[in-house]
Order: sequence, then C-alpha cells, then structure tokens
Amino acid sequence: MYSPHIRLDAKDVPRRWYNSRKDLPEELPPPRDPEGTDSRIQKIREITPKTLQEQDVMEERWLDIPEEILEKYLVIGRPTPLYRARNLERYLDTPARIYFKREDLLCTGSFKPNTSLAQAYYVKKEGYKGVVTQTGAGQWGTSVALACAQYGLSCTVFMPEVSFNQKPYRRIHSQIFGAEFLPSPSRHTKSGRALLEKMPDHPGSVNSGISDALEFAMENEGICYLNGSNAMHTLLHNTVIGLETEVQLKLAGEKPDVLIACVGGGSNLGGFMMPFLKDRLQNKLRFLAVESTAAPRLTQGTYRYEHGDPGKLTPLNKAYTLGTDFVPPRMHVGGLRQHGGSPLVSLLRHLGYLEAVAYEQSDVFACGRIFTKVEGILPAPETCHAIKGVFHEAYEAKEEGKERVIVACFSGHGFLDLEGYEAVLFGNDQNNQN
Amino acid sequence: MYSPHIRLDAKDVPRRWYNSRKDLPEELPPPRDPEGTDSRIQKIREITPKTLQEQDVMEERWLDIPEEILEKYLVIGRPTPLYRARNLERYLDTPARIYFKREDLLCTGSFKPNTSLAQAYYVKKEGYKGVVTQTGAGQWGTSVALACAQYGLSCTVFMPEVSFNQKPYRRIHSQIFGAEFLPSPSRHTKSGRALLEKMPDHPGSVNSGISDALEFAMENEGICYLNGSNAMHTLLHNTVIGLETEVQLKLAGEKPDVLIACVGGGSNLGGFMMPFLKDRLQNKLRFLAVESTAAPRLTQGTYRYEHGDPGKLTPLNKAYTLGTDFVPPRMHVGGLRQHGGSPLVSLLRHLGYLEAVAYEQSDVFACGRIFTKVEGILPAPETCHAIKGVFHEAYEAKEEGKERVIVACFSGHGFLDLEGYEAVLFGNDQNNQN
Repeated sequence: MYSPHIRLDAKDVPRRWYNSRKDLPEELPPPRDPEGTDSRIQKIREITPKTLQEQDVMEERWLDIPEEILEKYLVIGRPTPLYRARNLERYLDTPARIYFKREDLLCTGSFKPNTSLAQAYYVKKEGYKGVVTQTGAGQWGTSVALACAQYGLSCTVFMPEVSFNQKPYRRIHSQIFGAEFLPSPSRHTKSGRALLEKMPDHPGSVNSGISDALEFAMENEGICYLNGSNAMHTLLHNTVIGLETEVQLKLAGEKPDVLIACVGGGSNLGGFMMPFLKDRLQNKLRFLAVESTAAPRLTQGTYRYEHGDPGKLTPLNKAYTLGTDFVPPRMHVGGLRQHGGSPLVSLLRHLGYLEAVAYEQSDVFACGRIFTKVEGILPAPETCHAIKGVFHEAYEAKEEGKERVIVACFSGHGFLDLEGYEAVLFGNDQNNQN
Repeated sequence: MYSPHIRLDAKDVPRRWYNSRKDLPEELPPPRDPEGTDSRIQKIREITPKTLQEQDVMEERWLDIPEEILEKYLVIGRPTPLYRARNLERYLDTPARIYFKREDLLCTGSFKPNTSLAQAYYVKKEGYKGVVTQTGAGQWGTSVALACAQYGLSCTVFMPEVSFNQKPYRRIHSQIFGAEFLPSPSRHTKSGRALLEKMPDHPGSVNSGISDALEFAMENEGICYLNGSNAMHTLLHNTVIGLETEVQLKLAGEKPDVLIACVGGGSNLGGFMMPFLKDRLQNKLRFLAVESTAAPRLTQGTYRYEHGDPGKLTPLNKAYTLGTDFVPPRMHVGGLRQHGGSPLVSLLRHLGYLEAVAYEQSDVFACGRIFTKVEGILPAPETCHAIKGVFHEAYEAKEEGKERVIVACFSGHGFLDLEGYEAVLFGNDQNNQN
C-alpha cells in the first residue's frame, strides 16, 4: 500500500540546530546604528534574552537542542511528515514529483512553535516574567501564546489593526492560552500614536507592531521582546524543518531540484532551505522564494541599510526593502505584509542564490482552492504563495517534458483564514487592492 | 527519547471494517413505519445508495475496505496517532494514564471523512450525480464536501440556522470544495416552512436538517441522501478508529479500563468503541458516553420508537429520545444538538453496557481551555465533552489512589469553533442558555 506520508520516528527528531552562517559565501552585513543617535543596537540588546543574542552571532555549525525543548517538539507533533502530492501531480498532468513539508500539522497550525518554544525556554531560564512581540496574520502570536502557557510567562502581542479585525479567531485562540492581543498602531505607545496622527485609519503592519512591541518592552520591567522572523536565532530554531526534510527525501530516494517557500520575515524559508545551502552553492539545486505583489521586497525593493520598523526604534539592517514608509495594502495575507526582508534571505538573493517571484492575491487563493479540492488539505494564504510557485515549476517541467523534484514548505493551515478565501474567491472584497 | 505519539505505519491501516451487529447481546430493534401511512422505510430506501442499505443489515463480522478507499484514508492522514496526554496527567496529578485517539489530525479536522469518503465512493459507483445531507456544527458537511470534490459529485448541505450563522467558516471551507450550504429550517422545503410557521425564529437542529435534506433528495433526480451518524453503515466505516486504537494500545502495552467519547448521532462513539464490544460484554472495560445537558437524550430521554426528524419523514427507530418536538437551545456545541440517539448506542445504554453523563457547556469549555493550555491542542467543543469525562475519571482514579487507563476519542479540532470559546469563556453569551 503506497502512503503519501513519509514519516520519521520520534528518535529521528533532529537533536541539533544547524547554523548556516559559516556556509555563507560572504559575511552577513552586521546591524548598524544611525549616526549621531543613542545606540539602538544597545537598546534592543537590553530587552532581548542573552542566549538568543549569543545564538545570533554564534560561529559553531551545530547547536545541541536542550532536552526539554526536544520533548516539547515531540508533543507539538515533530517530526512532521513529508507529503507527496500525487493528486496534484495528476491534476497538473506533470512529470514533476511534488512534496510538501507539513508544518501545518503542528498543534497551532503553523511552523512557528519551532522557535517560540525554544525562545520561551530561554526567556524562562533567564528569569524574565513575560514577553511582548508583534504578529502578522497571527500565526506567530498564537505560537508565542502557546509557548508562554507552557512556561508560565505573561504574553502581550501587537497585531496589525487590519488582521486584528479580519482574524479574530487567532486572537481568541491566543486568549485561550492566556495571552493579550492589542491592535497596532497602538494608542498606548508613542510610536503608535505618531503613526495614527499621520494616518488615522492606518491598517498597521508587522513593522508598526515591532515599534509598539519594542516600546512596550522598554517600558515594562521584566518583559523581554521576542522576534518571530528575520533574526538569525529564529532561522536557527526552524532548521529542524530542513533537517527533517533532508532525511525524508533520502528515505524517498529523491534529490530535490528546487526548494520553494513563501517569504515574509524569512524564517520558514530560512529554516527549510538553510540545511541545503551547501548543495545550493554547488548548484545541485535551486531555491525559490515566493512573495506577494502587495509587498514585493525581493522583486522590487532595493538592497540597503534600513530600519525594521517605521518608528525607527530598531537598528539599521542590510536587506531588501521598500522603505519604512511603505504601508502594505489591506490584503488577506497578513504574514507577508512587511516592508523588508531578513538580512540572511536578502544576502542570498543579492548574491544570486535565491530566485524570487511575486504573485497576486487572487491567483494565489485560486491555487489554494485547487490544492484543497484535489488534496483535501486547506493551506494558509501564505502557504498558497508557495503552492502557486509549485504550480509554476510543475508546468515548466511539463513543457520541458522532464522530471523535476519540487519540494515546498507547507508553512501553515488555513482554518483561521477562511474569511480571506471567502472575500477573494466568492465575495466583494474591499481589501483586495493588489 | 519518549514520544507521546503512538504511530502506526501505512501498512498497518485497517483493511477491513468491523461489523459489531453479531456481538450485540440482543437483536437491534428494526425501523418501523407508523401505522396507516405510506411506507417511510421504502421512501428512504429509494434515496439511499443500495450498498449502504446492504451494509446496514449485513451479518458478516468483517467487510473488506475497497483499495480506492484505503488509498484515500492514507491521503487524509490515516492511521492517526494515539496520543498520551502526560502534561494533562501531571496537571490533574492523577495516577491514571490518559490517551487520546487523534481524529482531529485528519485533513478536515474531524473523524467524519472516515465515512464520507466511503459513502461518496459507493454513491459514485451507483451512478448518482450528487448528494444531499444535513450537518450539525458543520464537521460532517465539510467532510461530505471533501468527499464529493474527490468524486466529482454535487453536494448540498442543510445546516441548522444557528450554526449557519455562528459558524460561517465551515460553510466557507465547504464552498471551497464546491459544496452549497443552506440554512435549516429551509424556506425551500415543505417541512422547513411548516417549522418556521410554528416558530419563526426556529434555530434549527440536526433533525430539522434531516427533514429538509430528505425532501430535497426526494424531489431532485439523481441526488441521494447521505447520513452522517445514527445509521449502521456510518458506525461501520468509523470502526477504523477503534481498530487502530486496539493495535496502538497493545503497542503501548496497555489494557484500557474505560473508553470515553462524546455522543451526538453516535458515530464517533460507535466507531471508537464497537471493536471493543466483546471485551465490554466480558466486563474487561467500561464504556462512557458524554452528552450535553442541552440535549440530554441518554441521561433524561426515554427509550422508545420515534421519528428521527420533526417533519416525520423518517421511519420510527427505537432509541433514547427527548421527542421530535424538542428544540435544543442555541448553544455552541452544534454536533450534539439532537433530540435522539442512534439505535445501536441506545441499545447498549438500555442494556447497561454504556454509562452516560451530561455536562453543562460552561464546564465543558473550561476543561477544553485547560487542555489547550497544558497540551497545546485545541479541541472541538464536542471533544471537550469527552475531555470533561476524562477529567472526571482521572479524579476518581486519584481519589482511589489506583492506576486507571483512560482512552478517549479526540473527535475533532476546535479551530472553527473559536467564537464558541469566546462567547462561553470570555464574552456575554446570549446563547449560553444551558
């Protein structure tokens, strides 16, 4: 009996995270302070757990995963299966073989707990009483809420106002864990009030959430700030995705031709692809990043130093950016509504190791619908971007009449994004501006 | 490394369904027509696929599962893991060992595709062009929509008006598959109009949906009627749940003391428990059904012949019932809002082999919240009933100071029920009448 799921045993769960910094063909550009100001780098350090700062600059290739985190990885559903999408292959009538790494099967419905659980572990160990963070669609916020419930930490999450209203379910899910969600731009922070003064109906973004969260951490004793993507430590923890995928592809007797992931802050892409970086540098396979035309950093942005947030509380980082003044439209893919990419992802793009493509929301949801009908599995809108990339690669393989092994990261499920599907596929969508 | 998931390989997926009819200590009371009327039994037969009718009365103990259905079972995520809830054990400080059969990990988020895929397979084989059915919370409707998409069948689903409005997400999910959802009581059917005349703000129920769906099937050529619970064939297909659990408990070296399931139409309970019936008859273990105080059939109903639907289009079946005039309150547990139980479950209850208990919605959601906080997994409100039963058994084991092996069916996830959690746990709940 053929099973589409390539599963690993509990004993095969990765016991080390993989640090790809050493594999990079060029040094990662370090963060900088703008001239003539107090040091933002120093300020961020003061509200970031020390262990995570150390992981951001570590040189060693491997880092042992603490036993307690490994146990939690098993509880939330690791190792996740690698899924062969045969129905989709038949539907697309392609000679390509298509695989998805099923991070949606983790208990919050996305890959995000891979790092939220690790971060909360260190937060607790370092004696903080709670955390603050920002979230896009809410996948990260929910996963931090889960992790904080596990470690008895308080949890405050700033969410873009547009997602706060479009996606009440992730807020409620997080409240069940005991977390507090607040809309961003926030009336409770200086940077939030400044944005609202300039633009009273500001829809918020991941970046405005960063400003709010940083300010909250700076002004509340015992609270540290957590980062859901961009930072090296979030990519590091997420390398369990790629490490498992590597083993599973070997089990299936496959050599991947292309790896595909959607890209917001870059942590699912990074965690999925970085363990394959050495192969990429040797041109054994390709990397493809899929972004939204609503926030086309990698395809239309410029590679330069810029702040991470419009409040400019973050240091300057070198990455592809549309500028901090960029306000993404009110579209339904909350996780991709950002002005800038991560330094690591951007460097790979800059050096030509990462291809990038941007798709429109309506095409992306249409692909998600086809996927759901043929495979029965409902993808998150972010994941639909990766799926649209898969469609493209599969059609190319068909045109060439050649086999191609396509492996994509299925970053999350879409059960909490159904209002987006309805608006884009069936309804009058006032937010469908891209 | 200890894994809480006891997993089976694809090769261990059950290849036969188990028919427990032969194990029953008494014959199952057959359906009856009310005196002096046209035969309802005959009318229902005319709109029900023949193979399913045959399965309802089959005598053989085992039925081979067609290869094509087995393949689909693998695609949707079978075999599902059995999960040891160690965090919950620690939280409850109990000597009991607690296991959950994780049917929530199937791709629609509940156990329902076990039978919807099987039914659609036979529907297609018998040449129908589409199906109609009713749903409670929407788990069944969504799973029928999935199955119809797989087999290219049209799909119409009547949903209680209260759930139709409370739970738009399951409707949208089903629309993605291509299904049409309609509120019940329906203005498009005679029985629906009759109910609305008597009670203009009728909230609908699973049973009013049965009337609407039967009428729809009778009046539309090529459309057959599908049943999500109650009928013997739905229990039969769901025995994969119990058959897998049996193997997994042996792998874990466990002998169950008590099996627990929530009970609506009885198909998750039946599918989970029936493979253990012989052991039950020998008093090797106990069966516990958990229902809602809002529709307390097994604990407060009477065991007698009654119609399944208020429109009285169904034959009389002998089961515990609150009467067809019973209108369940507008509470959030859509899957348990029914006036009557299934004949098989009711017979077991009547003969003393099935214990039953009813819990209030607020207690049940509170248990679901604790479970989510400690295990990270969000249960459907229906499943929260089983969890509340688990809490009770675990406390009893603690009082006795004895080990107890508690195994419950985790019938579905709660991602599409978050508005219920919010209303009951955090909000002013106008529908919290029980």
